[in-house]
This record gives sequence, structure tokens and C-alpha cells, in this order.
Amino acid sequence: MDPVVTCLADFEALARGALPPATYAHIAGGSADGQTVDANTAALKQFRIVSRILVDCRDGSTRVSLMGEAFAHPMLLAPLSYQRLVHPEGEIATAQAADALDTGMIVSTLASQPLEAVAGVLPRNKWFQLYLQARWDDTISLVRRAESAGYTALVVTVDAPVTGMRNQAERAGFRQPADVVAVNLPATRDVGQIALEPGQSRVFQGAMLHAPTWEAIRRLLGETDLPIVLKGVLSAADARAARDLGVSGLVVSNHGGRALAPSPTAVEVLPEIRQAVGEDFPLLADGGVRRGSDVFVYLALGADAVLIGRPQLYALAVNGALGVARMLRLVRDELELTMALAGCPSVSDIGIDRLRHREVEPSS
Amino acid sequence: MDPVVTCLADFEALARGALPPATYAHIAGGSADGQTVDANTAALKQFRIVSRILVDCRDGSTRVSLMGEAFAHPMLLAPLSYQRLVHPEGEIATAQAADALDTGMIVSTLASQPLEAVAGVLPRNKWFQLYLQARWDDTISLVRRAESAGYTALVVTVDAPVTGMRNQAERAGFRQPADVVAVNLPATRDVGQIALEPGQSRVFQGAMLHAPTWEAIRRLLGETDLPIVLKGVLSAADARAARDLGVSGLVVSNHGGRALAPSPTAVEVLPEIRQAVGEDFPLLADGGVRRGSDVFVYLALGADAVLIGRPQLYALAVNGALGVARMLRLVRDELELTMALAGCPSVSDIGIDRLRHREVEPSS
Amino acid sequence: MDPVVTCLADFEALARGALPPATYAHIAGGSADGQTVDANTAALKQFRIVSRILVDCRDGSTRVSLMGEAFAHPMLLAPLSYQRLVHPEGEIATAQAADALDTGMIVSTLASQPLEAVAGVLPRNKWFQLYLQARWDDTISLVRRAESAGYTALVVTVDAPVTGMRNQAERAGFRQPADVVAVNLPATRDVGQIALEPGQSRVFQGAMLHAPTWEAIRRLLGETDLPIVLKGVLSAADARAARDLGVSGLVVSNHGGRALAPSPTAVEVLPEIRQAVGEDFPLLADGGVRRGSDVFVYLALGADAVLIGRPQLYALAVNGALGVARMLRLVRDELELTMALAGCPSVSDIGIDRLRHREVEPSS
Amino acid sequence: MDPVVTCLADFEALARGALPPATYAHIAGGSADGQTVDANTAALKQFRIVSRILVDCRDGSTRVSLMGEAFAHPMLLAPLSYQRLVHPEGEIATAQAADALDTGMIVSTLASQPLEAVAGVLPRNKWFQLYLQARWDDTISLVRRAESAGYTALVVTVDAPVTGMRNQAERAGFRQPADVVAVNLPATRDVGQIALEPGQSRVFQGAMLHAPTWEAIRRLLGETDLPIVLKGVLSAADARAARDLGVSGLVVSNHGGRALAPSPTAVEVLPEIRQAVGEDFPLLADGGVRRGSDVFVYLALGADAVLIGRPQLYALAVNGALGVARMLRLVRDELELTMALAGCPSVSDIGIDRLRHREVEPSS
Repeated sequence: MDPVVTCLADFEALARGALPPATYAHIAGGSADGQTVDANTAALKQFRIVSRILVDCRDGSTRVSLMGEAFAHPMLLAPLSYQRLVHPEGEIATAQAADALDTGMIVSTLASQPLEAVAGVLPRNKWFQLYLQARWDDTISLVRRAESAGYTALVVTVDAPVTGMRNQAERAGFRQPADVVAVNLPATRDVGQIALEPGQSRVFQGAMLHAPTWEAIRRLLGETDLPIVLKGVLSAADARAARDLGVSGLVVSNHGGRALAPSPTAVEVLPEIRQAVGEDFPLLADGGVRRGSDVFVYLALGADAVLIGRPQLYALAVNGALGVARMLRLVRDELELTMALAGCPSVSDIGIDRLRHREVEPSS
Repeated sequence: MDPVVTCLADFEALARGALPPATYAHIAGGSADGQTVDANTAALKQFRIVSRILVDCRDGSTRVSLMGEAFAHPMLLAPLSYQRLVHPEGEIATAQAADALDTGMIVSTLASQPLEAVAGVLPRNKWFQLYLQARWDDTISLVRRAESAGYTALVVTVDAPVTGMRNQAERAGFRQPADVVAVNLPATRDVGQIALEPGQSRVFQGAMLHAPTWEAIRRLLGETDLPIVLKGVLSAADARAARDLGVSGLVVSNHGGRALAPSPTAVEVLPEIRQAVGEDFPLLADGGVRRGSDVFVYLALGADAVLIGRPQLYALAVNGALGVARMLRLVRDELELTMALAGCPSVSDIGIDRLRHREVEPSS
Repeated sequence: MDPVVTCLADFEALARGALPPATYAHIAGGSADGQTVDANTAALKQFRIVSRILVDCRDGSTRVSLMGEAFAHPMLLAPLSYQRLVHPEGEIATAQAADALDTGMIVSTLASQPLEAVAGVLPRNKWFQLYLQARWDDTISLVRRAESAGYTALVVTVDAPVTGMRNQAERAGFRQPADVVAVNLPATRDVGQIALEPGQSRVFQGAMLHAPTWEAIRRLLGETDLPIVLKGVLSAADARAARDLGVSGLVVSNHGGRALAPSPTAVEVLPEIRQAVGEDFPLLADGGVRRGSDVFVYLALGADAVLIGRPQLYALAVNGALGVARMLRLVRDELELTMALAGCPSVSDIGIDRLRHREVEPSS
Repeated sequence: MDPVVTCLADFEALARGALPPATYAHIAGGSADGQTVDANTAALKQFRIVSRILVDCRDGSTRVSLMGEAFAHPMLLAPLSYQRLVHPEGEIATAQAADALDTGMIVSTLASQPLEAVAGVLPRNKWFQLYLQARWDDTISLVRRAESAGYTALVVTVDAPVTGMRNQAERAGFRQPADVVAVNLPATRDVGQIALEPGQSRVFQGAMLHAPTWEAIRRLLGETDLPIVLKGVLSAADARAARDLGVSGLVVSNHGGRALAPSPTAVEVLPEIRQAVGEDFPLLADGGVRRGSDVFVYLALGADAVLIGRPQLYALAVNGALGVARMLRLVRDELELTMALAGCPSVSDIGIDRLRHREVEPSS
């Protein structure tokens, strides 16, 4: 591969050149003007990592355990939909890279490859992301298939009951290609146009009609033995409520800046959510991870692991499974270097005392 | 219409291309170097909206009540003068859009169409903006005409006793066209050049001679049964004084950055003004609204509704009544999406607890 | 004059085009990289002016009294050296403008016109800026000439015992023209090269040998009945010491960013200096005044009047005495408009309660 | 030399033009995207220097004492490796300049000239920077040679147990030239590829195998009578531990932004480290020094002296020994001017009370 790839940002630059502009805008963009995408990146940059010197790191490793499951690294591939948009093999190629680099993967309900086929590539550390469907039977059907295929957790997305304004993609003229579809959903799932009465809202009385509620989560908990993780939590009160309801873990996330905008970042709310749910409750987080040092910051703020989103697609676009593998290798090596330079031989050494707020803005 | 219009900012870009540069500078610019115009925008960007998940929004709506009058949405068109500057139909076209989108409109004393004609297009939610005139009789004449035309409130502007330095418009060489005039004022209203003695000031002993005072407001309250709203309040003490005098509501506003510069923004002072006047006193606010999320922020800070200013003229310039209608549709849809994604089915759910200060500056 | 001049910044742009680049760099630049020049401007921009509405301003004026002397406006022309650099008439032209606009002027020791000739143009409000000379007799000679010429105060500069690094002017290759000289100083004042011993410093044992000290100020106070103002004070302790020694007033100033860099700005330290010297002690301030609103901010922070520096030279370069007069007219009109819009009919109404810190950085 | 050199930044610009781009990127760059390099510069810019007026400075000097050794100026040349990269004479030329300007120099273990030859040029104020070697005997051999050559202190680098990601140099394609080598190390020092078992990390079980530990420092203290200084300390706890172990001094440093990134800056942590080790413990600091005023800021924050890094190489590249000498002269003159303008005739007058945080961000 081109030696110009020295870090994840290089994949993004190459993907920008390789993809059709509208596809790139769809992937890179966020809600409204993208301010929450930028906020995710900016939030991470406010921290500096405090090193301790002369620490013996010879027994070091990045291993973590999440809900009883062992992971070689505190990183999982985030559930990105429709990966065939950028590479013909789509999620299959991504899964091959995850397996090769011993990294967990969360497969999307909106995958463009059959969830069973993706699972077949992944011997371990595979979770399934679940969008609740308008018809409960469709939801349950997905749950059963995920159980059968050997997924070890369900990640229910709760921060996107309606699709945000994606003005960047819209301006670029993005249209989903006809041959990239949600192959895991019934072709007939469209519940049709809802007839609104005068004075009713397309949003409240239309799109939100089948949006998930706490009641739906409670019902789902009764339907499966798989641990359920809620993805898209940003308030401490919701985090506590979810834990009390019996949910097994949370992903603190603003959906990569693609749902509500402007939204707080996971970085900003993570400490208070960790405080709310207690030390041992599994918390993942995402948004803006482009460096091993970003992973370090999330861990120090209270996350047990992070999700890596867009870089998957950039690396997949550039070089398929090999690209994703190299992307994962880069971020893992960076994390290890960061830990070694910081004097943290294990993930449990990474606490909030290792962070320091940047005192000054960078001079522009 | 061109599909490139995905949000209000797109109208501004199109209007910039479509209008003569001097006209655009006159509309877009503000006092001095425009810093208060920019401040209005920047102030809104400091907030992030805190979402709550899994909320049932099926009964949601954006309805509000202002001084006993029902509004479908918490937005009114701000009183912008001389709308024929950008479109031959001027305020008539704007009013048609307001009616079509069920949105309130405040018609300016300096309208370029007869106040009665504009009122004729608007079956409901029409208010009249009043500049106190040098001659009291002229003021009363306007009040009587507004009453007869069915306007339901008088909005008295109090933050522009003199015109600010409009250096941006001045540099661009803006001149008011001869055929765009304040048709609702007597042609002879010019009170002539005031003869100053040596050492006297053109400002204090000249322009401010007929500036409105508290006494004039008191007198006006005795002249009409219409509710009176003061527009341009930025201090808590003035807000309380206005309420105690019998004024029915306030618009917290810096006149779109076109009066005093540098001035605080409505966003910055709104919480303390809400605190000063109490929970139930009608407060509107304006400045920089370009997104449904901006409306949400103003409501969370204590406003009951917001005014939308310049986007009216941009949309009117681009596509007349249809442009203004689309502009209103966009901001309303965005507000509903924002409320849905935030988990706020009604305006009363939008409180200060839904906002979070941005902790970091965006990286530039 | 060109109608493009709408404010003081326009003069700067025109002067930049009209002057040789090295001369412009010499005037516009500051010490080191000019960061203190920029800081002066930035410090003013952090404030917003709080307006009060519906105030009766018909008796308004900008009059102030400084050390018993009446001034029509709270502004004086700062003592800028060598004004013939930009216009053949130099300080004479500037003084004509000061007289025409009823504005005070401080004439520099390093004026390029005879101090008596400049005084002759100025019937009132003329002060003399004094650099203490290496030979005491030379200092006293200047004092006596200033007394004879009718100057009403001596402004002793204390913040420039050595010249700062003027890298911007140096890079631009600025050289003082042979025909622009300090006509008020003896031609033989050069005290020659000081012979340094090994290990001695060109700065400490060289340039600082004749730098002014507290003892010199005490001695000067005994030599004249003119009120003495120290210019270049930035610490509260020094301000108090100066007052206690018998000095009549202070100019809080960082020498327009041309002496120590990086230096605090007058804006930042003014409140604590006002606090240190008490309510009635005469305080002037300067740095970055380009708008009437800047004058307002200085007054609100505790200054009794401000000095206007570089804009003199820009206006003088562009249009001689008429340029300076127009510059003064602009800033005075802006101050009056600002006061009127803020609801402050007199300078004594301008208190710290009229300022509000900007809460957010401008979006860039 | 070109008169365009007015300050250290001018050397950098010239070096950028003179060096191969990859070499420049290697020198100027830092870890990751260089954010810590930028942070070092930005951290210094947050301070303003508070002047006191009318101070008698005729006995002024910049002299300091470090661990009993007298220095004419509170500055040393930082230990930069492989100086023959930019000039054929490398460290010899640098040492000639240090001697000429009476400035201390720290010679790197990775010097491209024999440590004895460099020492021969330096009659005084020469320290040796020590990287602990994989084989203890190699370390001791360096110590003995340094002792014999007359170095007066050992500076042990502790913040770079592994090399950081140098993405900027990597992207530029930098490769060390074959003829620029670490002539002071045994040619056979490569300890070979370490064979890793599956699941082991290239970082923890590879590169960190021979990283220095507290135990190694303790052992080193027993091997030499030279004072030992640890370079790369950023935490107060480590600083105290080092002092308690018997170390003679510390360099507070983030390795010029070339090790851990993002890292705090020396500027940010210096006050708390000074607090931790007490008033009299020798503390040096580095990062971003480009001006005499930067030296002043470090001294005010608690450093006894500073190291000057990259400017050495820029000046060396531009004009060899004469370039470095001029660079040192510039920064020394600036420091003296800064002290004179601030009213600090000696280094001991420079305390934390002379600094003021910048209250506002510069307008960009």
C-alpha cells in the first residue's frame, strides 16, 4: 500500500480522492452543517495525556473484558450501514479485517451483506446492532437470526428515531444506489405513507409513529437472553434508567454527529455518565476516534472500550479488507505507543488523573 | 425550486448572487463592522441540545399561545422594512407565505405596501410594528389604522432612537431607490433640519430630540386597547420596568445587530430577563435564527417564540412568496425534527435543562 | 474626500496604499511580531455595551474635565513622534485639525516641528510629552520651553527606557529620512558610544545608563508648576506610587504595543488601576481606539479620557489636516451615537455596569 | 548575513528554504500531527509580562548559577542529535558558537561528532545527555567518556523509552543519511530483532524491553559523581520522586513535542513542579523558546534556565557556527531588553507576579 498512509487521517484523504464526491459527502457529513461531527473531533483535542516516567511496561497489554467477553483491544468496529457503498465485498471484507486484527465488530441491521455471512467470517467478538422495526415480528425475526448466527450481544440504537437533516449529503446529491440494500430486512417492510389530517405534523404524527420507547426496550429484554446494549445515550438520567431496566451496557454516542445537531459529544458527557452508572457498568463510547491517543482519552474519561466508525469505510474504500486491517493495526500500535510513553502498561492504569485540560487554545 | 436549497443558509447564498451588491450589503450588514450580526450567530453556536431517549412523541406539536393568541409555531416574521427592495410585491408576498405556512407576521411601520393591504392577506396572527413619530398625531394615526385593519398587537421599537453607523452598507454605496418608500407614513413627515447652536451636538440636540421615552410609552398605553410589546430590550431592569408599566410583552433583541454595536445578544441576556419578568410574562427574542435548532435554543433559554428576520428577505429575493413559504417550511420541519430527536414532544418540554454549553471552541 | 472613508479603519487602509511600505510598517508595527498591537485591538472586542432604553438624551454632551481643564470630548491626540514622516506639514497640520474639532493634543518631544510653532496653532487643550534626556539640563530646557509656549501639562513617558525590538519595521527596511528630525532637541544630544567592559551588557550598562527613575520624577516635580502626567503605567502599585509622589495623572498604556512585548493591555489593567488610585484621580488610557464605541469602553472601565494614536498618522497621510479633522469628527460622532443608543446622555453615565463580557468567541 | 534575520523565526524560515523538505519536516515536525509542537508555542503566548516603571537597571545582568556552576545567561543549547544532518561540521560548529556567546551546551548521546571533540571546543558549561543503552556496559562506557572529557553534568532522557509516531517526517519521506551516524555508540549496539510469541506486543514485549526504570536511575547514581539531571519530567509526583532519589536537577520538557502526543507543555506544569520540589531545586525547562520574552516567561513560571532546541539547527543550517552565534546573540539581547523594559535588573527579579494571563484570545 502507498507509504503515504501513516495514520487514519491519511485513509480519509485517500478515500476522499477515490470515492464519488456525493458518496464521500454522505459518509463524512453529519446532520445540518456537520457541526457535531466537528465537535466530536474538537472535544478530543481539548485533552493532554499526563505521562509518568520510568515505569516498567514489560508485561503490558491492551486486553479488556466487556460483559464477560474478552477482547484483545478496547476497540470495536462501529455498526456502519451499507458498506457495499464503498467496496463490492462490503461487510464481509470488514469482518475479515476485524478477525485478522483480533478486533470486535458490531454488524448493522442495515448491513448490505447477510448477517449470517458476516458472522461466518468472525469467530469471536461479534455483536449485532438492532434497529427496532415498525412491526414487532420483524424485530423479533432479526433477534432470532442474530442469536442463531452466534452474535454475543444486541446493540439497540436509540438516538435516531427519525433521520436528521443531512444537508451536506443532500447538497452533494447523494442517492443510495439501487444495488446496495438492507438485505437483512424484509423487502416489504415499508409501512406506506401515513395519511395526515390537517394540522398534523409529518414528524410527530408521521415518522415518530413507530419510534422506539422505553416500553419496547422492556419488551425486548423479555424476548432474548443476549445482553442488550443501548447505543446513543447522552444523559446521565437515561443511562441510569437503562441500567435499572436491566440493560447490560451503553454506548455513549451522538451517532457520529449524524442524528441530533447540535448535540453534546460523548467526550463531554462520559464522566458524568460513568458517575451515574457506577464503576463496573459496561460503557462504550464513540465519536471522532482517529488516533490511539483518542482511544486513550476515552478510556481515561470512563469508557471501557470505544467504537471506530468512519475510518472503516475510508480504509475499505481505499484497499478493501487489507485497508481495514492496516487501519486497525495503525490505531492499535498508536494506542500501545501512547500507553508506553504515558507509563500505563495496562488499560486499568488509564484513569482520569492521566488527562489534563488544554489550558490554551491553539494559535490558528 | 433549485434543489440546492436545503436550509436557510442556502437562501442567503442565492440571494447574495441575485441581489445588487449594495442591496445585499444593506440587508446582510449591521452597525459598524457587523460584529453584532456575527455575535448573534456565534452566541447560538455555543449551545448543544441534550437529548432524552425513547420518549413517546406521537402527540407532539409546536403550538404556543402568546398573549392569549394561538400560534401553530413559535415563530413570527420579524418586522422588516421596505420589502419591495428585493421583490416587486414586497410585504404582500411575504404575508401570503405567512398565511400559507400558518406563521405569524409583524408588519413594519416602514413597510413598502399599505398596512391595510398586507393585513388583508393575513386572516390571523398579524401584529403591527410601530415607530413613534416626531408628531404624536402621526403616531396615533398609525395606531388607529392598525386597529382598524385587524392587527392584534402593537410592537413598539425602542432600541433605535437614532440610526446606527451602517458602514457596510455605506461602503457598498447603498441608496434607497426612489420608488421604495414608507407608504404608510405621511409624505410630509420630515421635521426639517434642526438649527444647532455652537457646541450643540447633531446627535443629542438633533436626532434624539424626538426619541421615544418612558413617558411616551405610558401615553401610548392610554390610547389603545391593543396589547403593546416593546422590541429591543436587553436589560433586566428595563424589562421589569416595562412589565410594571403595563406593557404586555417584550422582544429581547439587538435589532439584528443594526442598532448599538457592540451589543449583547438576546441569547446572552434572555435567561436573566426571563428571571426578571417571571415565568408567565410573554417574551419573544430574535437574532441569528437560521435553523430549527436555533429556535429550540431560544425557547430553552426562556423565549416563548422567536422572530425570523433576514431569511425573509433572502427567500423573497430568490423566489417571492413561494421562497418565503419554503423558508418557513424548512425551519418548521427542522424544529420538529430537533424536538423529536431531543425527545421533546411539546414546546413546554423545552427547558434550560436541555441545553449544554459547548465546552470547547471548534477547531478552525 | 473619497466617500469610502466611513470609519477610522478606512483611513488605515488608504494610508497603507499611500505610504511607502517601510513607513507603513514602521507606523503600524509594534515590538517583536506585533502581538501587543493586536492584543490592544482584541482586548477592546471582548466587551459589549449594555443599552438602557427610552432615556431622555436631549441635554446630552461629551464634555469632560481633566485636572481642572475643560475638554469638549474625552479624547486627546496621543504624542506621536516625527509626523513629517507622512505629511510635509506634520504636527502643524495635526494641530490645525485638533483645534478645528475642539480636541486636545499632546505634542511629542520628538516632534518634527518646533513645539512653539505647534502650540501657536492650538489655543487650548495642549499638553507636552516629555522624554527625560541623558543630560538634565536638556530636560529642563524642554520644560521651560513648554511652559513658555503655553502647554498646560507635561506627559512624561516612562515605559520606553530602551527601544523595543521593532522587527516588523526592521524587516521592511525602515530608515528615518534625513530631513525628518527631532527639531526640539539639541543636535549634539548624542552621548556617544559607551565603552563596555568584557561581560557587560549593551542593554544594562549601555542603553539603560540614563533611563528615568523615580528619583528623576521627584526631581522634575520640584522644577515646574505644570501638572505632571506619567504615561505608560500598567501596574496598580506603580500607579499608587506615582499618585503618592505628587504626580497629577496617569496614562495607562502599553505604548501602542511598541515597547515591552508581550505586555498587558490598558483595557485589562484599567479597572484595577482605577481601584488603586481612587475615583477622582485623573486617568487616561490608550491602545487600539478606532471607534467611538472603543472610547465608550475605556470610559466604562475607568478612564476619564483616551488618547488616539496611529489614526492621526493614517488620516494625516491620506489628507493632511482635513484628514485628521475628518478622523476626529468620525470618532466623535460615533461616540455620541453610541452614547445615545446606550442611553447615556453624559460621560458620567458611562459606568462599568454598561459593559458585558463577550461570552463567546466570534466564529472565525 | 542577510539583514532579514531579525529574530529566531527568521532563521526558521530561511532554514525551511535551505534544507531538503524531508530534513526540514524531520526537524520541525513532532509526534503525530505535531499538535504538541504547536502547543508549546501556544502555551507561551498565553502570558503577558507585567512591567514596573522607573527601576534602576544599571547593575543589571542575566547571570545564573545551576548546581553550583555559573552561567552568563539562563539558557543552554538543548541536546539535539545528529547535527551533521544540516551542516558538515555539526556539533563542532554549534559548540564554537556556544563558546563565543558564553552559553551552556548539552551534547547528545546521538551526536554525529565525537563527544570528546565537542568537549574540546567548550571550555565551560558543557553537559552530556545520556540515553541509557540496552547493555549496561555501553551506558557506563558513555558515562566514563563524559567524565574524562570534562562534562560537568549528565542529563538522562526519560521521556522517550520508545520513539513516538513521527507522521510528519514519515509523510515527507525522511531517511537518515548513511554518513550521519551516532559516532559515540558502538557500531554493534543493535540488540537484534526480538522474537515475539503470538499475542505479544511489538511495543510492550519488544521496544520497551530495555526501557529505563527508576531502578536504573538509582544504579546510575551509584556509578558517577557527576550531578544527574532527568530530562522529560511533566508530573509533580515524578519530580518529587526524582529529587528524593538523589537526582540533582530536572528538565521539565515534552521533548519538543516529539515523544508523547498530545502532551502537556512544560509551561503548563512548571508552576506545580516548582511547588513540588521546593524553591531551590534546580529546574530547567524547554519547548517553544523563540524569543527572549519566552525565556522570561519560563523563568517567571519557576525555571532556573531554559533549553533552546530547534533554533540551533535552523541557524546552523543557514550559516554554520556564525548562524548559531547570531541566534544566541539575538535571544540574549531580547532577554536583556525584556528585562530592562519590565524593570527586572536580575534574573531573581523575575517572579510569577510578573506574568498575567492573556484574558482574551487574539482575533484571528
